[in-house]
Amino acid sequence: MELVFLWPGKTRNQHLRALQEEYLAKLKPLIPTKIIETPGARGLDEKLKKVIIEKETQGLEKYLKDGYIICLYDKGKEIDSEGLARMIEDKALFSGQKIIFVVGGFLGLSPGVLEKAHLKISLSRMTFSHELARVVLLEQVYRAMNIIKGYAYPK
Amino acid sequence: MELVFLWPGKTRNQHLRALQEEYLAKLKPLIPTKIIETPGARGLDEKLKKVIIEKETQGLEKYLKDGYIICLYDKGKEIDSEGLARMIEDKALFSGQKIIFVVGGFLGLSPGVLEKAHLKISLSRMTFSHELARVVLLEQVYRAMNIIKGYAYPK
Repeated sequence: MELVFLWPGKTRNQHLRALQEEYLAKLKPLIPTKIIETPGARGLDEKLKKVIIEKETQGLEKYLKDGYIICLYDKGKEIDSEGLARMIEDKALFSGQKIIFVVGGFLGLSPGVLEKAHLKISLSRMTFSHELARVVLLEQVYRAMNIIKGYAYPK
Repeated sequence: MELVFLWPGKTRNQHLRALQEEYLAKLKPLIPTKIIETPGARGLDEKLKKVIIEKETQGLEKYLKDGYIICLYDKGKEIDSEGLARMIEDKALFSGQKIIFVVGGFLGLSPGVLEKAHLKISLSRMTFSHELARVVLLEQVYRAMNIIKGYAYPK
């Protein structure tokens, strides 16, 4: 039973990065949790989209060998906070699986990574920047853990 | 033509606060923008929900006398980034109105404030903390302004 947050490249915005660490620290006492940031494809021209995505995919796939894989995907299923809580409860707490949440870099995830997903979810009909999406996802999973444990969500 | 972001109480999380300032600084060169933080009801026990909401409502209503009012509301209309851009373009750029985005405190907005809304929108089916919702809204409006101006959204 473990939660893994997986994405290519370190989160660059310092404040989003600080929030990422803050939610990670809050999650850890509730459930074993880690963030894995695989090598990003920095320094490459954005026009080399295919090369960037391939490089990022190689990095991600190493960590996609077991566990219940959930990809953030703009055309994925929209779920509410309660639904996310029930899903985490079912997969992690009852079935003891590792849940791997995957968020893409600025070009998104490759079809190869998306194919490995057991579930594709969308946070919103709106498009979030990939770094903000990471923080929103962490906050949602922290909220979900509070729902599962029956805690009042901290203000 | 102006964008106003209005909410009760200062954003307390330092990183979310920093992001708020960051998006405000990015928005200002694109369109006149300000954030108005009215007095919050800090120090009051959460059980005094009615008193808190009333105090917050009084502070907000002073700024709700003109302009096109958009309230963030969990049962509001879900729109996508493109839809938000077209709405801002229509109300602010074409019609020259002031748009006032209102986000509640941790107890949400009062029925009185919601009644004044010309439009109620929801960012997601998921429930975001009110401080995170402020940042997500700012990012979305910044994205919308980039769509309107025809800029590639900065990574």
